[in-house]
Amino acid sequence: MLLPMLADLVAGNEDWQVFGISAVLVGGLSLTVIAMTQGATVRFSPRFGFMLLNALWLSTSLVAAVPLYFSSLDMTFGEAFFESVSGLTTTGATVIVGLDNLPPGILLWRSITHFVGGIGVVAMGLLLLPFLNVGGMQIFKLESSGATDSPFPRVRQFSIALIGFYVSITLACALAYNATGMSSFDSLNHAMATVSTGGFATTDASFRNYSEGALIVGTVFMLIGAMPFAAFIRAIVLQSPRQAFDPQMPVLLGIIALATATITILALEHVDGPRWATVIHAAFNVVSIITTTGFVSADYDLWGPLAIMLIFLLTFLGGCSGSTSGGIKTYRLMVLFDALRVNLAQMIRPNAVRPVRFGRQPVTPRVVQSVAVFVGVYFAIFVAVSVALAATGLDFTTAVTGAITALSNVGPGFGSIIGPAGTFEPLSEAAKWILSVAMLLGRLEILAVLILFSSSFWKNF
Amino acid sequence: MLLPMLADLVAGNEDWQVFGISAVLVGGLSLTVIAMTQGATVRFSPRFGFMLLNALWLSTSLVAAVPLYFSSLDMTFGEAFFESVSGLTTTGATVIVGLDNLPPGILLWRSITHFVGGIGVVAMGLLLLPFLNVGGMQIFKLESSGATDSPFPRVRQFSIALIGFYVSITLACALAYNATGMSSFDSLNHAMATVSTGGFATTDASFRNYSEGALIVGTVFMLIGAMPFAAFIRAIVLQSPRQAFDPQMPVLLGIIALATATITILALEHVDGPRWATVIHAAFNVVSIITTTGFVSADYDLWGPLAIMLIFLLTFLGGCSGSTSGGIKTYRLMVLFDALRVNLAQMIRPNAVRPVRFGRQPVTPRVVQSVAVFVGVYFAIFVAVSVALAATGLDFTTAVTGAITALSNVGPGFGSIIGPAGTFEPLSEAAKWILSVAMLLGRLEILAVLILFSSSFWKNF
Repeated sequence: MLLPMLADLVAGNEDWQVFGISAVLVGGLSLTVIAMTQGATVRFSPRFGFMLLNALWLSTSLVAAVPLYFSSLDMTFGEAFFESVSGLTTTGATVIVGLDNLPPGILLWRSITHFVGGIGVVAMGLLLLPFLNVGGMQIFKLESSGATDSPFPRVRQFSIALIGFYVSITLACALAYNATGMSSFDSLNHAMATVSTGGFATTDASFRNYSEGALIVGTVFMLIGAMPFAAFIRAIVLQSPRQAFDPQMPVLLGIIALATATITILALEHVDGPRWATVIHAAFNVVSIITTTGFVSADYDLWGPLAIMLIFLLTFLGGCSGSTSGGIKTYRLMVLFDALRVNLAQMIRPNAVRPVRFGRQPVTPRVVQSVAVFVGVYFAIFVAVSVALAATGLDFTTAVTGAITALSNVGPGFGSIIGPAGTFEPLSEAAKWILSVAMLLGRLEILAVLILFSSSFWKNF
Repeated sequence: MLLPMLADLVAGNEDWQVFGISAVLVGGLSLTVIAMTQGATVRFSPRFGFMLLNALWLSTSLVAAVPLYFSSLDMTFGEAFFESVSGLTTTGATVIVGLDNLPPGILLWRSITHFVGGIGVVAMGLLLLPFLNVGGMQIFKLESSGATDSPFPRVRQFSIALIGFYVSITLACALAYNATGMSSFDSLNHAMATVSTGGFATTDASFRNYSEGALIVGTVFMLIGAMPFAAFIRAIVLQSPRQAFDPQMPVLLGIIALATATITILALEHVDGPRWATVIHAAFNVVSIITTTGFVSADYDLWGPLAIMLIFLLTFLGGCSGSTSGGIKTYRLMVLFDALRVNLAQMIRPNAVRPVRFGRQPVTPRVVQSVAVFVGVYFAIFVAVSVALAATGLDFTTAVTGAITALSNVGPGFGSIIGPAGTFEPLSEAAKWILSVAMLLGRLEILAVLILFSSSFWKNF
């Protein structure tokens, strides 16, 4: 909060006081909690892990909403919470219209929520989720920790490597944007929103007015944000380059190449101008959706009904596990697809025993079950959120695409309200709260929240 | 084909010749095949089972299309095939406008395709699918055959019981319709379309002009058609009343009660007239969709956006296994829901070993995997069919709701074209072929068709 305070001070904007007071309040509260819990030793248990995750994301979201609520923007608390959750979960859906005229402090604060949220997601995917058996993430446990089964032994090393790597690629992205002619302030903000696969822009036009060079830089760094860079960090800390390869990479890149080619062909029927520009726009927007970033460089809802349907479907997929992106994620699609192969083989030879594999690695039936349960629950929650949004009076397209864009942490939906050219501002307060909950659910892989409502969690506490 | 021939002869319609010639052609062909394959002994293997299923449904669909194609209706072959497939798969989607003026032969033929298709589906669910390990159907193997693992020992007894039971409830349904004031001809046709959960009507108005009494009769017999009556037949043959209970029954009835109550409340805001009539209409249409029948008694797309979304969701569900209905089916939802419960428990106590259950019966991880694969493939094919339909130029609503109504063998979709007040007639020839394939895929539980395209099927033939 001190950084946006400085930015507003330099720009001569009154909001610096809001950030200053918020910083003192939150700092004081944090120090009090630290002092109160001093010396208490932590014994890791699944229950503790789930409590930690939920408490951390909820309290951070509330804290990050404070300066927005008290700022000159005149937001309701629901709107401030929506914007804060959208930032921290790296969704990038916004309720603010008129970004171009906003004081720099608020813009910087929104980008910082992306930056912090992004590193939080990677840390969660690296250090916590694999040990909590959430949605098949246990696959990534064996590789990470070797002999030991606890997340804590090397946690310091992992954290330092993570921060170093994350800061480095964000700076590299900012420099690259700057080199294409973007202003320094916009470069820094957009770099934070790119690497975290967030999607908050500093202008209502998102990436519509930037050069093709900026779109290419954006495409590359969004892709990096969706790579399993928890794997890179493991490779660095464990000094084993072999760890840096992940079978999700070629699959994700293949899906993106196929989707870009198809959508380019469809877009060419609807868009004038040079063909290579259409390719760049198609690639940028496909990568933006599938990495769950949500930047927009063109109104792709004008590319015809088939392109709209394909882009809608991409909203579900998401990037690799251990990245900053959301969605169902590549490894789950791979496990389910291999389960189909095994299932078909067993229909012909019922007595054959064949394991389901992720890449070359066999996975246990329990992991397959976890993945299947996750995907089933993903669709069930998608349906439940759609119905809840429709119950607030939203039309079918807005309800359905709003539900999935929030749950997958993408950003824009479809239709005249929340489509690529719109914002979430016109929605009712109730719809904003529902979408905030959906964003948090998606970010915490749903099951890590649902568990708090299961009898298993509360039995024999 | 001799029955519609007689009906047209009595009515003095020229189409009797078409049915007569078709009967001779098909009869001759069938006798030739019987003569050629005389004496060959059948050794049951999964491969043989899958070949049989696919060949049977495809050849029957082609045969049933013959009289439609040559009739006075002037259909393309694609349209005749669509209507035939829609009949045999008990979908009930039609490409014929002006049913009220049709000769009785054609109307009777359409109802007979439902009747034959319906008994075919139950026979398949009772005698074949459990032995082919399709989509978790193996659950129903143990109960049915006791000690032996082959479907053939009691096949004669099962078939006789099935035919007796099926004919009895169809006659009971026809008599009940007749008692509410429906004409004898309409009662017979609608009884065949009700018990088979098909949905072909003898008038363009479907059930709009019938009395509340007829709606109640329809609701009751559609429900019977969606009950696991393979279980009833097992109970009769094995002389064990215990077999007739199936844990799917209370779950399906519970879902229907909940959906009816919710949709009644929503419909009351949009519909005038007595409340009890609205309850009857809501129940009829909910049961019609969830049992995958597809009769329509009111334009439910006028009941508000939330009602539309709920009815759209019901299109996926379907009735019980071993019934005449399609869709995902109740037992798969039950297995997945219990898998979620087990998964949440294991997130808290990773070392606990708990089986997933269907009712009280534990099921193996392989069954859970089969169910999960089925549901995943169901959604994947739904998406693929939607995309294919959108590629023929259909709008989003028609493409998506057309895909699921065909795949679940329901009948009507949503929107101005294929909605409850429309038909499939205006669609392009390509769209009709795509939908025909979707109906067959849905009816054969998808995997039983996909297997023909897997390498496992063709390896070591």
